[in-house]
Amino acid sequence: MAEKGSYEASGVSIERGERAVGLMRSAVEGTHGPEVLGEPGGFAGLYALAGYEDPVISTTIDGVGTKVLVAREVGRYDSLGTDIVNHCANDVLATGARPLFFLDYIGSGRLDPEAVAGIVRGAAEACGRLGMALIGGETAEMPGLYGEGDFEIVGVCFGACERSEVVSGERVRPGDAVLGLASSGLHTNGYTLARKVLGDVGISYSEQPEGLNRPVGEVYLEPHRAYVREVETLREAVDVRGMAHITGGGLVGNLPRILGSLGTRLDPGSWEQPEVFGLIRSLGDVPEEEMRRVFNVGVGFCAVVPPEEAEPGLEALREAGCEAWRIGVVTETAGVEFA
Amino acid sequence: MAEKGSYEASGVSIERGERAVGLMRSAVEGTHGPEVLGEPGGFAGLYALAGYEDPVISTTIDGVGTKVLVAREVGRYDSLGTDIVNHCANDVLATGARPLFFLDYIGSGRLDPEAVAGIVRGAAEACGRLGMALIGGETAEMPGLYGEGDFEIVGVCFGACERSEVVSGERVRPGDAVLGLASSGLHTNGYTLARKVLGDVGISYSEQPEGLNRPVGEVYLEPHRAYVREVETLREAVDVRGMAHITGGGLVGNLPRILGSLGTRLDPGSWEQPEVFGLIRSLGDVPEEEMRRVFNVGVGFCAVVPPEEAEPGLEALREAGCEAWRIGVVTETAGVEFA
Repeated sequence: MAEKGSYEASGVSIERGERAVGLMRSAVEGTHGPEVLGEPGGFAGLYALAGYEDPVISTTIDGVGTKVLVAREVGRYDSLGTDIVNHCANDVLATGARPLFFLDYIGSGRLDPEAVAGIVRGAAEACGRLGMALIGGETAEMPGLYGEGDFEIVGVCFGACERSEVVSGERVRPGDAVLGLASSGLHTNGYTLARKVLGDVGISYSEQPEGLNRPVGEVYLEPHRAYVREVETLREAVDVRGMAHITGGGLVGNLPRILGSLGTRLDPGSWEQPEVFGLIRSLGDVPEEEMRRVFNVGVGFCAVVPPEEAEPGLEALREAGCEAWRIGVVTETAGVEFA
Repeated sequence: MAEKGSYEASGVSIERGERAVGLMRSAVEGTHGPEVLGEPGGFAGLYALAGYEDPVISTTIDGVGTKVLVAREVGRYDSLGTDIVNHCANDVLATGARPLFFLDYIGSGRLDPEAVAGIVRGAAEACGRLGMALIGGETAEMPGLYGEGDFEIVGVCFGACERSEVVSGERVRPGDAVLGLASSGLHTNGYTLARKVLGDVGISYSEQPEGLNRPVGEVYLEPHRAYVREVETLREAVDVRGMAHITGGGLVGNLPRILGSLGTRLDPGSWEQPEVFGLIRSLGDVPEEEMRRVFNVGVGFCAVVPPEEAEPGLEALREAGCEAWRIGVVTETAGVEFA
């Protein structure tokens, strides 16, 4: 048992749980700065929230969905840790807050200490890259609920900002530009369809279909990209009026979340799509409408800025190492139109 | 989609997810005071943390384990919502913080909207009773990972206090009294053993074995008790030097978490045990040592106070409606001894 903060293992096999906790300990502790308080084994993680005048907490809970099934088949787990951290951090980021710390939960039928440690190490490394602390977690064994090799990963990110820094989308105006930030691939959505398409044509994860430069299993496991540094740079350069993390539901489902009664017209030819989307589209003969509702189709995060700030914004993003495009315009009619 | 804060459904069936979210909406919104900010559908929940000078955040993530399997068989789900809220709130409480808000995650093979809504309604009601906001959640469908009727519940509680109010156990001294607060039953731990014992002797959840005044399924599903009001009253009355939430590992596993190099000697005859523990002990012929390591055996939460404050402390707890006993003393030798 016991990390600084709270890192616990519960279930029938205490030994196996402790082994997993032992394997992940140093990776987790490496993410702890002086703001993480308390001794090992506390009942909850403690984090000092200093320096805010009128703090607003931003928090989200999410999973990585059936991407775990791909990881299990390929036998590579560390990228799932990155996935869950980056997915949750982006959600917090979209509200205007800075992601500060993270907790994870791993449920399974029978704990595989190496797999669990791989996931948590991946999560700790991802936290480290984003300047976040991994301050708590739980690994639970639940025979009878999960099959022997099955497991589930849930993550929670907490962030904070001053009340005046919250970005809700309420300042978005018709004519504003929609900037699209490049995704790294499927991120953590659409895996039920993505797996089905491969299964239907009988392609295994170790194969490398035409158009891919790596085995399809590796392409499918490409980690969810985080946009924390990129958005920080963007917000220093221009006035960001709205942000959307493009997850389940795609551009169609997520952009309306910040547009209120307004809408947007996107130019589908204005951005590049990673090869994986072309592969899925052609192998599965998936209609474009379904592609756009299930996948991010190349745009992992959007920022809405005044039209005259679109170019400076794109420049700032590219200088921060993030490919980005002006993908559309805010319109007066609700809905997402492609034209 | 879309609660104030962030309440999302993801997975293959958007309709089923939206139906579940619709069913739980009013219950969730009923927990929102003015400190919950933002419009429906935000990417993360927003909570204004006002009035703290030097705030420390306390947070924990946990599940309800295989208690979900009992709920599924009995067909009653709302108590699971109470379980997960109260379990997490008690963990935060044990660090000295006041639980402020909660997020939940429900993963399943195929969403049953009524079951999901039942769980979330139960969680919202539990939050309401404790003065907490339910500010976010996720319901995910993952066919292939969970069986058709299987599901998993994960909860996160977030609390805060002034840095000076953190209770870590470092002020605990030999001779201090250990107060035990009555549990309501199994709470959320030990269900793998509790289920096995019934299965081995072939007793179904609808039966009412001798010594119980209700069917055993109802007794097993009795919700995890929260100690928020009780501990508030206790801390107003006496100096609380350490607190332990008795979950997986029992008294033996959890009291050492606040005792550092010290230990404790407990008098096992000093408190009453709900009948369910006697039933499990006798049906399964479970050795006492295992009982104490797997279950709370009647004590759901402990508080360590100076010896002269034990009686005033017990009085305060009983006035707050909580049965409580002086169950032991802090000793100089590490470990938990029963004598």
